Amino acid sequence: MQSMPDVSPTKWHRAHTTWFFETFVLANTRLGSPYDDGFDFLFNSYYETVGPRVDRARRGVLSRPSAIEIGRYREDVDRRVEVLLDEALDEAKGGLVQLGIHHEKQHQELLLMDVKHVLFQHPNPTAYAKRPSVQFENTHAQPSPKPIETEGGVFEIGADGSQFCFDNELPRHQQFLEPFSIDSTLVSCGEYLEFIEDGGYHRPELWLSEGWSSVGSLGWEAPLYWTCEDDSWRRFTLFGSEELNPCDPVSHVSYYEADAFARWRGARLPTEAEWEVVATRYPVIESYAFEPPQVTAGVGFFGSVWQWTQNAYSPYPGFRTAPGAVGEYNGKFMVNQQVLRGGASITPEDHTRSTYRNFFYAGARWPYTGIRLARDAR
Amino acid sequence: MQSMPDVSPTKWHRAHTTWFFETFVLANTRLGSPYDDGFDFLFNSYYETVGPRVDRARRGVLSRPSAIEIGRYREDVDRRVEVLLDEALDEAKGGLVQLGIHHEKQHQELLLMDVKHVLFQHPNPTAYAKRPSVQFENTHAQPSPKPIETEGGVFEIGADGSQFCFDNELPRHQQFLEPFSIDSTLVSCGEYLEFIEDGGYHRPELWLSEGWSSVGSLGWEAPLYWTCEDDSWRRFTLFGSEELNPCDPVSHVSYYEADAFARWRGARLPTEAEWEVVATRYPVIESYAFEPPQVTAGVGFFGSVWQWTQNAYSPYPGFRTAPGAVGEYNGKFMVNQQVLRGGASITPEDHTRSTYRNFFYAGARWPYTGIRLARDAR
Amino acid sequence: MQSMPDVSPTKWHRAHTTWFFETFVLANTRLGSPYDDGFDFLFNSYYETVGPRVDRARRGVLSRPSAIEIGRYREDVDRRVEVLLDEALDEAKGGLVQLGIHHEKQHQELLLMDVKHVLFQHPNPTAYAKRPSVQFENTHAQPSPKPIETEGGVFEIGADGSQFCFDNELPRHQQFLEPFSIDSTLVSCGEYLEFIEDGGYHRPELWLSEGWSSVGSLGWEAPLYWTCEDDSWRRFTLFGSEELNPCDPVSHVSYYEADAFARWRGARLPTEAEWEVVATRYPVIESYAFEPPQVTAGVGFFGSVWQWTQNAYSPYPGFRTAPGAVGEYNGKFMVNQQVLRGGASITPEDHTRSTYRNFFYAGARWPYTGIRLARDAR
Amino acid sequence: MQSMPDVSPTKWHRAHTTWFFETFVLANTRLGSPYDDGFDFLFNSYYETVGPRVDRARRGVLSRPSAIEIGRYREDVDRRVEVLLDEALDEAKGGLVQLGIHHEKQHQELLLMDVKHVLFQHPNPTAYAKRPSVQFENTHAQPSPKPIETEGGVFEIGADGSQFCFDNELPRHQQFLEPFSIDSTLVSCGEYLEFIEDGGYHRPELWLSEGWSSVGSLGWEAPLYWTCEDDSWRRFTLFGSEELNPCDPVSHVSYYEADAFARWRGARLPTEAEWEVVATRYPVIESYAFEPPQVTAGVGFFGSVWQWTQNAYSPYPGFRTAPGAVGEYNGKFMVNQQVLRGGASITPEDHTRSTYRNFFYAGARWPYTGIRLARDAR
Repeated sequence: MQSMPDVSPTKWHRAHTTWFFETFVLANTRLGSPYDDGFDFLFNSYYETVGPRVDRARRGVLSRPSAIEIGRYREDVDRRVEVLLDEALDEAKGGLVQLGIHHEKQHQELLLMDVKHVLFQHPNPTAYAKRPSVQFENTHAQPSPKPIETEGGVFEIGADGSQFCFDNELPRHQQFLEPFSIDSTLVSCGEYLEFIEDGGYHRPELWLSEGWSSVGSLGWEAPLYWTCEDDSWRRFTLFGSEELNPCDPVSHVSYYEADAFARWRGARLPTEAEWEVVATRYPVIESYAFEPPQVTAGVGFFGSVWQWTQNAYSPYPGFRTAPGAVGEYNGKFMVNQQVLRGGASITPEDHTRSTYRNFFYAGARWPYTGIRLARDAR
Repeated sequence: MQSMPDVSPTKWHRAHTTWFFETFVLANTRLGSPYDDGFDFLFNSYYETVGPRVDRARRGVLSRPSAIEIGRYREDVDRRVEVLLDEALDEAKGGLVQLGIHHEKQHQELLLMDVKHVLFQHPNPTAYAKRPSVQFENTHAQPSPKPIETEGGVFEIGADGSQFCFDNELPRHQQFLEPFSIDSTLVSCGEYLEFIEDGGYHRPELWLSEGWSSVGSLGWEAPLYWTCEDDSWRRFTLFGSEELNPCDPVSHVSYYEADAFARWRGARLPTEAEWEVVATRYPVIESYAFEPPQVTAGVGFFGSVWQWTQNAYSPYPGFRTAPGAVGEYNGKFMVNQQVLRGGASITPEDHTRSTYRNFFYAGARWPYTGIRLARDAR
Repeated sequence: MQSMPDVSPTKWHRAHTTWFFETFVLANTRLGSPYDDGFDFLFNSYYETVGPRVDRARRGVLSRPSAIEIGRYREDVDRRVEVLLDEALDEAKGGLVQLGIHHEKQHQELLLMDVKHVLFQHPNPTAYAKRPSVQFENTHAQPSPKPIETEGGVFEIGADGSQFCFDNELPRHQQFLEPFSIDSTLVSCGEYLEFIEDGGYHRPELWLSEGWSSVGSLGWEAPLYWTCEDDSWRRFTLFGSEELNPCDPVSHVSYYEADAFARWRGARLPTEAEWEVVATRYPVIESYAFEPPQVTAGVGFFGSVWQWTQNAYSPYPGFRTAPGAVGEYNGKFMVNQQVLRGGASITPEDHTRSTYRNFFYAGARWPYTGIRLARDAR
Repeated sequence: MQSMPDVSPTKWHRAHTTWFFETFVLANTRLGSPYDDGFDFLFNSYYETVGPRVDRARRGVLSRPSAIEIGRYREDVDRRVEVLLDEALDEAKGGLVQLGIHHEKQHQELLLMDVKHVLFQHPNPTAYAKRPSVQFENTHAQPSPKPIETEGGVFEIGADGSQFCFDNELPRHQQFLEPFSIDSTLVSCGEYLEFIEDGGYHRPELWLSEGWSSVGSLGWEAPLYWTCEDDSWRRFTLFGSEELNPCDPVSHVSYYEADAFARWRGARLPTEAEWEVVATRYPVIESYAFEPPQVTAGVGFFGSVWQWTQNAYSPYPGFRTAPGAVGEYNGKFMVNQQVLRGGASITPEDHTRSTYRNFFYAGARWPYTGIRLARDAR
């Protein structure tokens, strides 16, 4: 199902990631004969170089192939890729296999985001999964943020080539930063509730002009998935509707809301570079919680929701796109979107790092988006 | 799937018609305990009196209940209705059972219209069914229309109470008609192709002002489901894409197209009353062909597609709606729609009659809509 | 100014009616040399036969010619038409002069409707004119409607050729009517206020389905131009904002509101033929009041607002459009509009008659539209 | 007139800039009694702190006050401000007078942009002014761009306080730049024509994804105001329609077009900082040409059109908004817009500088927007 134009049906995600391997890895090999000639049109997402494709907003009316048939397609492509992997792969093909795996991980996260959105459309939403009886010990006390102070100066930013990265993390380059501080913990639901109760959604002076328009035209009064009945707040999660836990990090807020919250608190959002400089000192934490718990300060920095930065998504100095169709992977989206850093509780294992640049439109609320505050040094 | 706001998913049609029996027949009986309390919200189509409901355009994102669960719901309601039927039914309940059956027949037709529309959205549309090897003998020669002449005068119009009818067919009343003639056969694809080839879609003088706007804004160049490749016309049917048969009646044209075609031919569309006065003399023909063949003149008049009349849908003199929720069945749609008469190849058995008033918006092209011409008597 | 797509700037109305004379009267005479070759494009309203034209919704951005220049254009065309009138006119040209005069009268009314709409957009609306100190004596007592009873039978409907008429009033023909009664007076603001106070705008069972949608999506709570401050109702008129006079006829209601009001009262709207049959017995009353007063029963029937009928606008049996461009005058609008009968306080002198068919979309509220009730005879 | 939502009527610009002085300079002085209490609602542009206001897209339907009345308003406020200036002004008021003057200069430019857009809507557009017989000597030879090479390092960016600046140019801060080169001249119409002729508008690989969507949905084939008849290009200017001069700088291109052009040329757009670092070395050139001529390399760098940079509009490190309503001047627009640097031929005297940050949406084409190319150093 496609509950809004941004959402793709589950079977489409599964077919598209399979098509990615077929098109960029198997094509032009002796195993490259396509499973179905029509799939290029159906499962190409946005690669102009590959050819025309189904309009994104029409993915929901693709009655064929069925979910079962797509399962067969996946098996067929998996089998062919395995054969190829057993043989000698040249460096370029090897890189494309790796890219295909990271691409699939991105879609694993998108698929869960989309499923959550679909389920929530229902007047009586169903849970996607049962919450494990014990999940996290640290969810019962709301951690107090500790500012992490950093001196100014010239810093190295971007991926250093020691592990896989997307082209948008390159090249490594220098940036000058003024001294700043950044909070050790994420903004919690409890803190965000204070913003709401202080009239945050009704005070234009806190908002960017576009944000204030969205509040009015879309009727925002709280993050997406929050509901209020009889003065009691709940939120819809992949585990169904749950009482709001004030210790959990707030998620499903737009950039506009994150920015307004920061202004209300007399703080600001961090820049990409500030975030990266600090994050580099901390280990990546993988949560696999489906729904974000607060991660204790000191132990980690990545958090369990993506964190809006004040940077628009744009190329690093010296950025070059890859040749061919995979060059369309990142570069062509570098306008009118905001960068998020960190990772989310639904992000697959080994799919984040301190240089990872996620990006969404400023109004997007269906990703797992949260807030970490920063400040200029006194 | 829901390919446009007018289309409902197959499982929704099945659940809605079941809900109709549960709500209007079973409720307030000892078997009236609802299968699921939430179904009122999900499967009420437009009955304000019954309560709020899912927005029509959002039927496609109802992830629950599943098609299988809806099958169970149908079995449960069928069983309960059967129990009730085995007992004594009072007249009112009996009438509602009958109404529920006719309501379901309407949805059987809508379901096929909708499935056809959904399948056609696909870049490579699938057939719904296999065409029977022998269907109709008379499809190889294009019948020539014979004008049926009728004297003017005062005529009785509307249902006479001898069989089931909807409230909009009542009361039987008198209308004065000027002398007229009406064609014995439907406009064929071959004739319609002449209109296209004569520049019909490019000559504003043939069109109603609204029709001409639709031609421009929607890019109409032929009926819905017609495609042209290499100067060869095909049309998509429930049997898949087929070569255009010039002897078949044209279908899937809007009122605007029907009106423009008539003007091009120096004729006009019939009025409801003219159609009814003539149709009453002929037997109803049931075709069950899924796709409309031309029905030989002399044998029948109903045709195998619905036929646009020049009448807007409005109440007969003395019209009264039924009390309660079923009073919303017809009356509240009596503005800005056009009446069609006849029946279609997908109309279920025993679901048409000479007084039957079908109605759609003038721009609708996904029903099985065709053209029969009329003329003022010389 | 153009306050919505339906509204045209004052200078456009003045230029368009001038262009009508230049195009249909002066063209092809020795005085036919156009004032400005570009005016065909600017001031053609909808005549496809004459050629392309400015999109209706863009009339408001025609910076040239100025209002002053258009005044010169009018003088020039007037002068040329006068020269022509001093000479012998053939019958066709004579008919076109007459048509041009009636066309201009229609635009005199439209111009005032449009000016009223433009002025009302302003947060602090200005009056168009000063209300005469004494206008009507009968505005202080709310007249009680007297049902005018009429027997059923076959009636002659349509213009009889004794005076000018538009093509849509022809041909005169017969219609059978059931017995009915029609109110002698219009629905008053006081009566309409009772409908509002009885929750009329919040009871879906009173409304056509499309009407109920409009109530919701457009937020209707009262007729257009009505405002309520501190429980006190006022309405904006061409004389500025005035306290609501309960004796005045209600105006600026859509067909949907008229229909809902009638249903609330257990009555219905009249048909065109019913209205015409009764109106023929009464003299036309010219009010020239700019704003509608109640016209005393017995004295008149036409009223001072146009009255919605339950008929969609469609051709009379045997209707023929005039040849050439003027044939586009009426016929091509005969779908999805409702007929109104009567005349309004802003209708120019000698511009209505019992057979006159005015028409607007069911949702239109900026014309002077009111309500007269009818009922089936007991 | 208001030809699109972004455009304001001329009289509105004149009234709004007057209101700015009345509200921010005269208010709370003994001369602060407002000219008209209703003007706050009519002529407030976006100051939430001041109060509600007319929706931007509805400025075109403000029938009152007239242009003449607004002239009187201006005279009245001018007179009062002059009285105030003759007396002692405190520093804050002095700063607001200065801000009011710069605000008015911005609107002088906007007013001309808007007038040009309005005039162009007409099917036969009029010139705003007559082109002076001799304007610029250097318009007959297309200058060849000379790359200006710059070493990398840490640079001081932003205003240094030596002259008036807007808050968004502050605070002065450091940025690290990699070595780069930037062209000495602007991209010319001749060069842009080569891009068009090379299929630039039909090659998706050259475009940002959003840009390619705009090309498709808006039908872009050339810059705004360019027209092509019989293979001959013209462009509409404030002097009317003129033959395209290949030596003039291209203007009225969106960010998307600027970016695509740069990619086609194997170059890129400069960053804000790169532009500023180079521009600081050159004198500001005031052209007052109304329409942009190429300004010879070596003489100047500012150019005669605004130049898109690859930076989204965002706050400098340490940015603080002014307290009170004027704090809404710049900060609240810092999302989803792109910065332009330079100045335009219609920019008033003394209204640009090397640190000036202009900003528009990436799709905007009605400002005087052009292209200067940059490259990473080899």
